[in-house]
Amino acid sequence: MEKLNIALLGFGTVGKGVWDLLQMNKDEVRRGCARDIEITRVLVPDVQKDRGRDISAVSTSCYDDILNDESIDIVVELSGRDKEAFDYMQKALLAGKHVVTANKHVIAHGGLALYELAEKQSKCMGIEACVCGAIPVISTLTKSLAANKITEICGIMNGTTNFILTKMAENGKNYADVLKEAQDLGYAEADPSADVLGYDARNKLAILASLAFGTYFDVDSISTVGIDKIVLGDFNAAKSEGCTIKLIARAKRTEDGVELGVSPIWVKKDHPFYSVNNADNAVLLKGNCCEDITLVGRGAGSLPTASAVVADIMDIARCKGVPEQSFYSLLNTDLMQLNYDLNGNKTL
Amino acid sequence: MEKLNIALLGFGTVGKGVWDLLQMNKDEVRRGCARDIEITRVLVPDVQKDRGRDISAVSTSCYDDILNDESIDIVVELSGRDKEAFDYMQKALLAGKHVVTANKHVIAHGGLALYELAEKQSKCMGIEACVCGAIPVISTLTKSLAANKITEICGIMNGTTNFILTKMAENGKNYADVLKEAQDLGYAEADPSADVLGYDARNKLAILASLAFGTYFDVDSISTVGIDKIVLGDFNAAKSEGCTIKLIARAKRTEDGVELGVSPIWVKKDHPFYSVNNADNAVLLKGNCCEDITLVGRGAGSLPTASAVVADIMDIARCKGVPEQSFYSLLNTDLMQLNYDLNGNKTL
Repeated sequence: MEKLNIALLGFGTVGKGVWDLLQMNKDEVRRGCARDIEITRVLVPDVQKDRGRDISAVSTSCYDDILNDESIDIVVELSGRDKEAFDYMQKALLAGKHVVTANKHVIAHGGLALYELAEKQSKCMGIEACVCGAIPVISTLTKSLAANKITEICGIMNGTTNFILTKMAENGKNYADVLKEAQDLGYAEADPSADVLGYDARNKLAILASLAFGTYFDVDSISTVGIDKIVLGDFNAAKSEGCTIKLIARAKRTEDGVELGVSPIWVKKDHPFYSVNNADNAVLLKGNCCEDITLVGRGAGSLPTASAVVADIMDIARCKGVPEQSFYSLLNTDLMQLNYDLNGNKTL
Repeated sequence: MEKLNIALLGFGTVGKGVWDLLQMNKDEVRRGCARDIEITRVLVPDVQKDRGRDISAVSTSCYDDILNDESIDIVVELSGRDKEAFDYMQKALLAGKHVVTANKHVIAHGGLALYELAEKQSKCMGIEACVCGAIPVISTLTKSLAANKITEICGIMNGTTNFILTKMAENGKNYADVLKEAQDLGYAEADPSADVLGYDARNKLAILASLAFGTYFDVDSISTVGIDKIVLGDFNAAKSEGCTIKLIARAKRTEDGVELGVSPIWVKKDHPFYSVNNADNAVLLKGNCCEDITLVGRGAGSLPTASAVVADIMDIARCKGVPEQSFYSLLNTDLMQLNYDLNGNKTL
């Protein structure tokens, strides 16, 4: 059984999850891809820092140690950085390595160039972990529903905001108090703007929409309304009509193009999203043959995100390094008319 | 672009769906697998019968026409028959063809022999359409969640019974009247026993459990209670505790084995299955890293099932005929202690 060697870039929440998963579930991983997967390098800024696991035998602060190591098959980019991450991935592909990443910001903004380079290099790009953690949205869209004309994508794609909205709805607490609670619990960051202003959900929407509709979107043009202006009165108004409020990211096929946007929307009691609470995520995919497919689960967290990262690694192991599908090939359709401000019905 | 030739065995509801889908979504299929897929043969018992589509150029009543045709890459078994279907698939694999099927009964009862043969012949077996129509349960379990130790599978896996239970709960009609309504609408067959007695759900459970737990189950030993004895009083009792009744198929990992069973179970209001109504299906997969993943959608029907059939065909097209994963390899673990009668909590 040939071993597959991987290098982790970064050893934060997700990196530690991948490390732990590969130890815990060694048998399952081997059974599922007929290979042993070994972390032979971990890139960290400071090799001396205690990280709760003994990575001393494999840690390095020099990326060239990884790029020049021909025994490394896959670079797993989990640095959590935006600027560096693009360079890391570009260099990995140029060095003839496959890339797996959880960096939604970089894929939403610079994915096209990376897909194109991966195509040229005949290398794989695994991006499942970029969208909604453990929920298999990317593979469902690009493989399981590949025979469909996708007509709509719609989802609760950010756990932090869903947690805040759930607590406001359930406990009648105001935004500022619940945000503080979310920060104390580790569900929201000290600077929560990427989440509460809707930018994180927008990145995920842009990735899904590009794969579903074959067009690359200008992410920053997508109309995005956050949850920071929502007051308890808004919930009372929604409740009086049997609704609750969720932050919804949505892309719809129209007669001659695609409309997309992110904003808080009223959700009716009988909609599958109504009961998706706390930090959970949900995505509804509509296709012209499959009809409605709803996926619900953990959209973030150490082990749930690691589950998606390792699934991508196992996919590469199974296809023996020959890309079975290039994401770039999904993006070669003619540009459609784009409306970055999804209007219309404000209730799901 | 190399063309992929397929033969359909049978031209009933699902066969027609595959025919229609490949015409409607030609561009999507090509984009998703970089191949054109053409139906070059359709096996039907009577080539003269009018089937609402012009299949005269490709229809045959002689299976040898397909087996001996070296240009055919994949045999798509949609005959709806039990005895013949196993032979059809065995012969196709022996003739060096990949097999895709929607026949849950044959895969639940004789899948092991077929997986083993496919492994020997280095051919692919696609079985996504066997479980819950358009919902990507098989690929989620065997690929997206492959890095997990699966701890539980639980679902509403039969649309006919879910339709009947929904109408009994909503309209207060009794079992016999709703069954008649379901038959008139085409949701239930003239002989509804395979559905209402739980055997169809049991077949699906056995397939999922074998892939999740690496053990082949004796399907007919799985304790199975149908819905035919449920009376309106049962719903009143459930409602008084804030529950409804669903036919649940469930397999759970225990300390030293697996427990499984099919039976009507009370489902609480806050459970994701509570609002899965009418002919919809839902499956909850629990893993030790991904936590809970719930998939909801159309579990049957012409185009939804065709969506899964064609996804399997496209998977084979993408991997260029070299099986990237053998289901058989997932079944090589030691037999565990099996309890075919899942007892315990009767409420979800």
